[in-house]
Amino acid sequence: MSGPAVHLPGDTPVAFPDAKRAAVDAYLEQVDFDQSVPIDGLTEAMRYSLLAGGKRVRPVLALSTAHALGHDPAAVMPYAAALELIHTYSLIHDDLPAMDDDDLRRGKPTCHVAYGENVAILAGDALFAEALRLITSFQSGEPAHVIAAIDELLAATGAAGMVGGQFIDIADQVETAEELTQMHELKTGRLIRVSVKGAAVALGADTGTVENLGRFGAELGVLFQIIDDILDVTGSDADLGKPSGSDERHGKATYVSVFGLDRARELADESYRKVCGLLDSIEFRGDASDLRSVSAYIYGRDR
Amino acid sequence: MSGPAVHLPGDTPVAFPDAKRAAVDAYLEQVDFDQSVPIDGLTEAMRYSLLAGGKRVRPVLALSTAHALGHDPAAVMPYAAALELIHTYSLIHDDLPAMDDDDLRRGKPTCHVAYGENVAILAGDALFAEALRLITSFQSGEPAHVIAAIDELLAATGAAGMVGGQFIDIADQVETAEELTQMHELKTGRLIRVSVKGAAVALGADTGTVENLGRFGAELGVLFQIIDDILDVTGSDADLGKPSGSDERHGKATYVSVFGLDRARELADESYRKVCGLLDSIEFRGDASDLRSVSAYIYGRDR
Repeated sequence: MSGPAVHLPGDTPVAFPDAKRAAVDAYLEQVDFDQSVPIDGLTEAMRYSLLAGGKRVRPVLALSTAHALGHDPAAVMPYAAALELIHTYSLIHDDLPAMDDDDLRRGKPTCHVAYGENVAILAGDALFAEALRLITSFQSGEPAHVIAAIDELLAATGAAGMVGGQFIDIADQVETAEELTQMHELKTGRLIRVSVKGAAVALGADTGTVENLGRFGAELGVLFQIIDDILDVTGSDADLGKPSGSDERHGKATYVSVFGLDRARELADESYRKVCGLLDSIEFRGDASDLRSVSAYIYGRDR
Repeated sequence: MSGPAVHLPGDTPVAFPDAKRAAVDAYLEQVDFDQSVPIDGLTEAMRYSLLAGGKRVRPVLALSTAHALGHDPAAVMPYAAALELIHTYSLIHDDLPAMDDDDLRRGKPTCHVAYGENVAILAGDALFAEALRLITSFQSGEPAHVIAAIDELLAATGAAGMVGGQFIDIADQVETAEELTQMHELKTGRLIRVSVKGAAVALGADTGTVENLGRFGAELGVLFQIIDDILDVTGSDADLGKPSGSDERHGKATYVSVFGLDRARELADESYRKVCGLLDSIEFRGDASDLRSVSAYIYGRDR
């Protein structure tokens, strides 16, 4: 395919913005879920899943967006942390027996295996509320911008966003490539896109920049999911923190099942070229190198 | 007990603010859950539970609060409707097999019975997101006031609020009267309180008025729960829309199981006197008659 020439990383490890990741981890560690009432068993389950590790891709994207726009990344930390709480909530509910019925996540028993199904449902519910509460309580900036960012986040995670994507997934409505793309766009893509776009909105970036970042974030979501589907087939259990091949066992349509592994890899290459091209097309006032690093990391995960 | 003399309604039917209720129903009917993506089965489940009827006590309280503060009640309609979406989400999740495992709600099969457990979990999740999105998309007013109202709402519904109360309930931690009161304060009381307090915050009411309305709302939540527990024992299946005595079958601690029916009725009388006294102590610029009517309705439900 044609497109701007970009460096496609091979065996070279990609440098992830680990300082930003560490800052996210430190912030998440100190989030206080209000222990003035006797809910220790609930907050323990919330923290069990929230602090299970991971690259914190979504919050790091938000911080990196702030950096690229010339702001102190810390300016969007509450918003960034909220993304991880929401991601965690979605994983807990996706893993439930009535949903994907998964026992392992990030190498540990899933929340409902560790704490029971009822506590896991409530831990997910509470994480969603507490995520948004981080923003309403702590996100600085023009109130109108903060509301607009929450609105973007809710659209990305509601009925026509992440939850809707999960519904399409469980409803077994996915057969064609178009349906697969749409399901992933909702289930995974919208939260990744809003990690970038919502941070820009919270910071009051101009409409053109917000739209351009939205397009970049959307393509990055596509790339993320193609690589995820490839990894499910090619990754080891240890890499994945769960048994590989779980998509196939769940009978899920994936980029690999629909296109085959070779074509899925080509699609990943094409998507990464688009991601890089979209980033190149934006004039940043700040330093966009971490946005590039996260993009390269997402692309390079299957090497 | 001592306290201001108030009229305790006997057999006279209490006039509920039906015009406000009708306005809420009309608003809820036209809420658009974004059908641009193929999630009909999800939105159908959401609407099935949301539009199952009921008095719409929480939204009517919010509209009545605006009225009492001298505003057009319609000024808080998005916030009011959000309360009903959140209430519905909490009922759907409470009814799940892993939670209370209830088959009937408002005389109809519960959401998971009608649509499956997986769809019911997602319908609850989506209702919470869409509830808040009504506010971020449509609630007018000073942005800082709107954020503060959302913050109140999230505190009322998160880990140390409604979800925490449900956790305490399922964790079987309730034995003493104090624990019972706290569980109900979180599980039911906080959402009723924020129906009043949050509307005042959204409208930018002064701090003193907000605090006074918060105390009124908190006591109204207590009254609501005492009456609910009494009705579970004394009401007919048709009145309740579900089999009576379900608390006892679930082995739940209630005001009746902890205090006995007679003492629970006395507690309801005492609570209603406090509710009326708190209302009388607030100087309203507008018309507080509907706040009084809803209070009397809540108290009179067990007659």
